[in-house]
Amino acid sequence: MADVAVLGASGFTGALAARLVHRHPDLELVAVTSRSDAGRRLDDLYPQYRVPLVLDAFDLDELGPLDAAIVAYPHGAAAETVAQLHERGIKVVDLSADFRLRDVATYEEWYVPHPAPQLIEEAVYGLPELYREQIREAPLVANPGCYPTAAILALAPLAPYLDDVVIDAKSGVSGAGREPTQTTHFVSADENLTPYGVGRHRHTPEIEQELGVQVTFTPHLVPLDQGEMVSCYVTLKQDVDVEVLFAERYADEPFVELSERPPGVRDVRDSNICRIHARRDERTGKVFVFAVIDNLWKGAASQAVQNLNLMLGLDETAGLL
Amino acid sequence: MADVAVLGASGFTGALAARLVHRHPDLELVAVTSRSDAGRRLDDLYPQYRVPLVLDAFDLDELGPLDAAIVAYPHGAAAETVAQLHERGIKVVDLSADFRLRDVATYEEWYVPHPAPQLIEEAVYGLPELYREQIREAPLVANPGCYPTAAILALAPLAPYLDDVVIDAKSGVSGAGREPTQTTHFVSADENLTPYGVGRHRHTPEIEQELGVQVTFTPHLVPLDQGEMVSCYVTLKQDVDVEVLFAERYADEPFVELSERPPGVRDVRDSNICRIHARRDERTGKVFVFAVIDNLWKGAASQAVQNLNLMLGLDETAGLL
Amino acid sequence: MADVAVLGASGFTGALAARLVHRHPDLELVAVTSRSDAGRRLDDLYPQYRVPLVLDAFDLDELGPLDAAIVAYPHGAAAETVAQLHERGIKVVDLSADFRLRDVATYEEWYVPHPAPQLIEEAVYGLPELYREQIREAPLVANPGCYPTAAILALAPLAPYLDDVVIDAKSGVSGAGREPTQTTHFVSADENLTPYGVGRHRHTPEIEQELGVQVTFTPHLVPLDQGEMVSCYVTLKQDVDVEVLFAERYADEPFVELSERPPGVRDVRDSNICRIHARRDERTGKVFVFAVIDNLWKGAASQAVQNLNLMLGLDETAGLL
Amino acid sequence: MADVAVLGASGFTGALAARLVHRHPDLELVAVTSRSDAGRRLDDLYPQYRVPLVLDAFDLDELGPLDAAIVAYPHGAAAETVAQLHERGIKVVDLSADFRLRDVATYEEWYVPHPAPQLIEEAVYGLPELYREQIREAPLVANPGCYPTAAILALAPLAPYLDDVVIDAKSGVSGAGREPTQTTHFVSADENLTPYGVGRHRHTPEIEQELGVQVTFTPHLVPLDQGEMVSCYVTLKQDVDVEVLFAERYADEPFVELSERPPGVRDVRDSNICRIHARRDERTGKVFVFAVIDNLWKGAASQAVQNLNLMLGLDETAGLL
Repeated sequence: MADVAVLGASGFTGALAARLVHRHPDLELVAVTSRSDAGRRLDDLYPQYRVPLVLDAFDLDELGPLDAAIVAYPHGAAAETVAQLHERGIKVVDLSADFRLRDVATYEEWYVPHPAPQLIEEAVYGLPELYREQIREAPLVANPGCYPTAAILALAPLAPYLDDVVIDAKSGVSGAGREPTQTTHFVSADENLTPYGVGRHRHTPEIEQELGVQVTFTPHLVPLDQGEMVSCYVTLKQDVDVEVLFAERYADEPFVELSERPPGVRDVRDSNICRIHARRDERTGKVFVFAVIDNLWKGAASQAVQNLNLMLGLDETAGLL
Repeated sequence: MADVAVLGASGFTGALAARLVHRHPDLELVAVTSRSDAGRRLDDLYPQYRVPLVLDAFDLDELGPLDAAIVAYPHGAAAETVAQLHERGIKVVDLSADFRLRDVATYEEWYVPHPAPQLIEEAVYGLPELYREQIREAPLVANPGCYPTAAILALAPLAPYLDDVVIDAKSGVSGAGREPTQTTHFVSADENLTPYGVGRHRHTPEIEQELGVQVTFTPHLVPLDQGEMVSCYVTLKQDVDVEVLFAERYADEPFVELSERPPGVRDVRDSNICRIHARRDERTGKVFVFAVIDNLWKGAASQAVQNLNLMLGLDETAGLL
Repeated sequence: MADVAVLGASGFTGALAARLVHRHPDLELVAVTSRSDAGRRLDDLYPQYRVPLVLDAFDLDELGPLDAAIVAYPHGAAAETVAQLHERGIKVVDLSADFRLRDVATYEEWYVPHPAPQLIEEAVYGLPELYREQIREAPLVANPGCYPTAAILALAPLAPYLDDVVIDAKSGVSGAGREPTQTTHFVSADENLTPYGVGRHRHTPEIEQELGVQVTFTPHLVPLDQGEMVSCYVTLKQDVDVEVLFAERYADEPFVELSERPPGVRDVRDSNICRIHARRDERTGKVFVFAVIDNLWKGAASQAVQNLNLMLGLDETAGLL
Repeated sequence: MADVAVLGASGFTGALAARLVHRHPDLELVAVTSRSDAGRRLDDLYPQYRVPLVLDAFDLDELGPLDAAIVAYPHGAAAETVAQLHERGIKVVDLSADFRLRDVATYEEWYVPHPAPQLIEEAVYGLPELYREQIREAPLVANPGCYPTAAILALAPLAPYLDDVVIDAKSGVSGAGREPTQTTHFVSADENLTPYGVGRHRHTPEIEQELGVQVTFTPHLVPLDQGEMVSCYVTLKQDVDVEVLFAERYADEPFVELSERPPGVRDVRDSNICRIHARRDERTGKVFVFAVIDNLWKGAASQAVQNLNLMLGLDETAGLL
């Protein structure tokens, strides 16, 4: 059993990560921390997860020996703590954006001044379907953003051929985080549908880094809890057999499903699965790819556990089926 | 045309009141105020209402001459402003709880120390179906709470016969107000259903005052925007013909509908109507009454306009059909 | 007062059309018909619309003299009845697709063999913002589909410059009609999000006819009742000042609103308004246009009334504000 | 490994039962049947359950040897098949109502003529918290209705003291089954809230049988997928210490949770847990009990597996945590 702490466990993704570690056959959840809710029980905040631990304020010296940590802090706030954990030899999966972008200038253009640029080259981008072997050896894994997870899995098989790429994305409200705002107010989101971050969403450079091409990426907020879809409309530089390409690329992936029909987000709710439908439209020549994930699971917490499994030498699917 | 201001127009009920006054054939909306959003346009906050006015900070001296005001402040905060308006001879419909309870001790037991007890006896309880004639003459009308509106209309015809009264109430999330909280967060309310205020909801004494009997009243939060239902389970002191009683009591009411089937909250959405289904259960002898309203309309803003119509000598239904 | 009948008034759009005609200051709703629900009261099927008429089976000879009719039949089924009404000199707004496409071959490729091709050239495409003057004189108006209404209004100002056009559309479930199916089952649609009709949705040729360019159009079902959005991602043939173009094009339109921010479908719920946000993305050079309508209103029933107002020489906005 | 078949696996509860058996460590799902969808794969109908079996038409002779079967047929239709299985010595959990009522006359008063009355006395009412020992020995278990499960668990500790009992129940739409109807249409259920089966819901005699007292039971449809709540308002014959009574009664129950706060249905989603909050209201003397379950899980499919575990001598919680 590996000892694991989840830092920032009062947010949506941290709490789910805690639940997944808590029920994991090979991991032991030894601590959960929270700045805002220290002293409260996690199963009081999230009864449905049934994790009977008390949230502590973070204090590295009091945490005790750890094999690994999942850090669920906001971008900018994560890097310093990640650096401290790294220094002590604790393997880290970081759910923030801080170590996703390999180019510090790009990070600083889209986010904030980088708090720990020296660590960037230690980090591996935590999409196992792309970087499985590097993740096994990595001391620090930057867990991908939710939209990039879906968008990159949707388009990776086509990466060499991409010309014009339009990604229209839709996410449930849990993607906006636990903080109550006018945006996350039930009365704002219910029976509504809104684009946001148009032309400037921070997941854009992450998608472009992995696909190697400029993309038009636009997310929308939809009135549901968990679930995310990317609808990709792509012009290719050359003709390819789309279905064969996807079938070959994902033949052995335990968490990627190819679907003959366009998928719905319900198909993957509460799972680590990305379900993809790709086809060429005969009439227009465009290639359509629709991919769905659960933004809290494959888009965040369960992918963190998938990464942890790889980093700790466990079965990649342990605790995730 | 009567000149009307809506104070506290950035909240859900105030904004709707502003929209109803703005479109009213006989009223002129001359000002909208807000503490939190002064300087913003109301149609920026609520595009769907299309009221092209800028919210001002409240300043009685700058408001100009007014025939009437609708005050949409929280309880406790309303009374002082209501008193100022009253002093200047401005007719007031107060959406807060401050003048609903005729007994100041009861108010202070359930709420806070009363800020203007001297005004209580000037106020008329603004349920036109019970107090139409008094409202016509009133300088100050205390607009009923949303649950009391539905519960009192549901049970008024049975008032003389009520013995044991259980009221199970359900409301959409707009009833919790515009402030973003964990309760109003989409992810908390969506796919959920929760009782709240169990045994201590402040609408209880208001219902009891008007029905003259102790009641068991329990509200629940349901995942919808606008709409409210009371399900009443009643033991009567004597047998009565329930259907005849309701038919006679509400024969001439423009905003009460009797329904042969149990109603749904959709039946009254965006209307000033209370729809009621009442029947005696042969098997158990209990009387069932189900009543639905739109909590923002008949439960607040449109009932305020109904009261204003009466106070200003207009057709009671003006601007409400 | 013009005498109007609504045929097919038991479906979602027919019922709303009946309600709008019933409350219209210059129209008299003289009959409502339904094949499936003849004999039932419309306010029993749709209590919220409060139209106190009984649905009749359609019988042209029993309908009495009519100035105009709104026909809300499925495509294929509408044409014959439309032809009968036309023959008797009754002005018709047809909500079906039967007379929207000017090219009968295109109609037959996407739909069925055309039941009344001789009437096609009598029909005017009922988008007042494009064909206002022709509609005033038309004996037969083909009311646009919901998606085409939003998509054409979104892109009409750019029509001469359009090169590559991707339209990702999203609609609430009322767009799928009143018939209960697995798709419209609450448990299928709730907390879900699904593309449908990928590459073959019948609104595609209608959009292409009006914009004069091939488009990639993909609708998605979202878990809400009324509301529709088109998110358009466009490459232009030449640089234009997008904001000026839209401002000039829609300056005098009573039912088109330009918004500085991306709109939400709530902004236009229960209204005849199309709200549009258009901008050029500096980074990629793409032009984004987001447009929202209420699919049952501007996407169907209230646009039918707008057309009727024009055809009957009434104020275009009568009964719609 | 025990070989289990699920009959009627295309409905909501049957499909979930199949998924639970499929993932169960000690059960082998050897067959799934369906009248309406024979020949289709279950993971095509329900991708989220990932059960890779083809639905067969039911044919007892082709089923092969079975240790047990879960029958998910409608009432009336189940009894005959249950009798056939019973005759062959196959243990059966029947999800229908056919063997829940011990008094055949009561069954026939509320349902239909009983198709297999001779089997009634073989059946045990499958609420493990009440009949655990009998279930272990039973050849046939009648799985309780969803509302009775919640209502009986909510009130069993108070059973000897119950006087007046009002149960206001609320259920998500999955409780209405998979068949598409006007009631289950998204547009009917969304943003709505409706009582149904008022005074005549068939779960009433089942609750009364187990509690030994007449009850007023009224269910409501709420706009969510899975989740059910009973709000019970009870007058007791004598004063009891409610909290102690519940704590003692449920101390060792693996699937009953007592909560200090009123629970929400989200707390138990996708679990076999019934979460209960019980308290005496000092002001009125009434006892309030709120209980929540997932109607498809503890209200049907997972409770069936809990029963199966007992009948087959397995750990009661196997496959359910």
